[in-house]
Amino acid sequence: MRTAPGPRLLVLKVGGSVLSDKHTTGATDYAAIDDFAARIADLHAEQPGRIVLVTGGGALCHPVGLRIKADRTDAYAAVALTEPAFAMRWAWTTRLRAHGVRAVPLQVSAMYTERPDGTVVQTEAVERLLRAGALPVLSSDFVVTAAGTLRIFSSDEVPALFTAERFRPLRVVALSDVPGILTGGGAVLTAVDPHRLDEIRGLLWSRPGDATGAMDGKVEALAALARDGAECVIARGERTQPLRHLFAPMTEWPPATPRTLIAVGAHR
Amino acid sequence: MRTAPGPRLLVLKVGGSVLSDKHTTGATDYAAIDDFAARIADLHAEQPGRIVLVTGGGALCHPVGLRIKADRTDAYAAVALTEPAFAMRWAWTTRLRAHGVRAVPLQVSAMYTERPDGTVVQTEAVERLLRAGALPVLSSDFVVTAAGTLRIFSSDEVPALFTAERFRPLRVVALSDVPGILTGGGAVLTAVDPHRLDEIRGLLWSRPGDATGAMDGKVEALAALARDGAECVIARGERTQPLRHLFAPMTEWPPATPRTLIAVGAHR
Repeated sequence: MRTAPGPRLLVLKVGGSVLSDKHTTGATDYAAIDDFAARIADLHAEQPGRIVLVTGGGALCHPVGLRIKADRTDAYAAVALTEPAFAMRWAWTTRLRAHGVRAVPLQVSAMYTERPDGTVVQTEAVERLLRAGALPVLSSDFVVTAAGTLRIFSSDEVPALFTAERFRPLRVVALSDVPGILTGGGAVLTAVDPHRLDEIRGLLWSRPGDATGAMDGKVEALAALARDGAECVIARGERTQPLRHLFAPMTEWPPATPRTLIAVGAHR
Repeated sequence: MRTAPGPRLLVLKVGGSVLSDKHTTGATDYAAIDDFAARIADLHAEQPGRIVLVTGGGALCHPVGLRIKADRTDAYAAVALTEPAFAMRWAWTTRLRAHGVRAVPLQVSAMYTERPDGTVVQTEAVERLLRAGALPVLSSDFVVTAAGTLRIFSSDEVPALFTAERFRPLRVVALSDVPGILTGGGAVLTAVDPHRLDEIRGLLWSRPGDATGAMDGKVEALAALARDGAECVIARGERTQPLRHLFAPMTEWPPATPRTLIAVGAHR
């Protein structure tokens, strides 16, 4: 029996929803970050140099994002996001280092820019760190747009830095506070064809006041990556559960792990 | 009479010594940053898109730098510098923005890496911001070495990102707590040939316990840039004095402005 190979690179996004409750307490859960850091340290020990961590913003970044979106006068308002975004990268970096990982925070704004003729991606620092067996820690931030202004670059967009051939096969796993795209009654949509998003759009939602569009924006971003060849997975972030299956072929994931796979060739 | 043209790009480094007294109080002088930000805002209004600001670390970064240098076991210890370095970039960014400048902090570590076959410089984000008339705010940080470890990248080294032809003529001005290289008795060496550093080495000094080598390291870094064609100047940072002469040919600088010029063709 042939099994699909595992990924060469895993971009692991831990959603802000897992690290804080941006709708109620407004606090970042640093104990959750520490728990996840321990799980990621275990995974990284087995797969050094093959993981890029992307931290969601959560409670720290959410109110800043809302203020930026409400600003109608300052085309550079998004620069305000750099402060909470650095704080999140640093929180992960210190806790991963405490677990023995060579974690290194890097600012995406310096590595990705938009131009009228396309995007420019410059990831030499990330690639050199990966080759050295280290763990780059990325996050949301601002990005320079084709018009020369700034916009918010959501953590869901960050995996787009790694779609070049040399990173493939690429897997993107987004850990969230839900186990995938819900169909109602607690069931999870197992697989989504990224070319047929229209069929499931009724299942997505965007909470009022959300800075980045919640599941709607996440699925759009992941589907774009999937159309470009990445294997994208939404799963629930469980801070006490091992993450070792994240490098296994999807067919070998623990049966009790609900998730939504978004990939070309995936079907419901 | 022919006069040399002014620079296309000015890399303005404001030394940590101007912003704090790292040898006594250990405090960052945020009022000084605000004063300099006002002067830089005036200069930037006249020369938008032609200035890159590099902030020295000073009191915030100095003790972290010493701890990193003392560390004999962790090849990734320099990652600790990212926290105070971001704090310095952010202090400048907020104060420059308060003075109406589109200041944008960017992490040098993501734009510069060392390899066995040379360095890789990726400054697209900086260049796009300059073309948009904005002011990139850079600082010291870690850098990935050819060996795949990290080392401290001093703010004196940051101008090396801008030696490419498209940035020339390049001027680097380092504002310090002294008016240049002192010859004794308060006199300042007017000009230094970067190919003949040996002749003046007796005038340089390195204070014990300094993380970056003080004037010694600064002059070495500037001389390397000057040998590569940049026009480098050390001058005293005066928080209440206009900075408009920084784009003028050296012959047109105010006569009462002591400074040391380090450039090919400069002579004592």
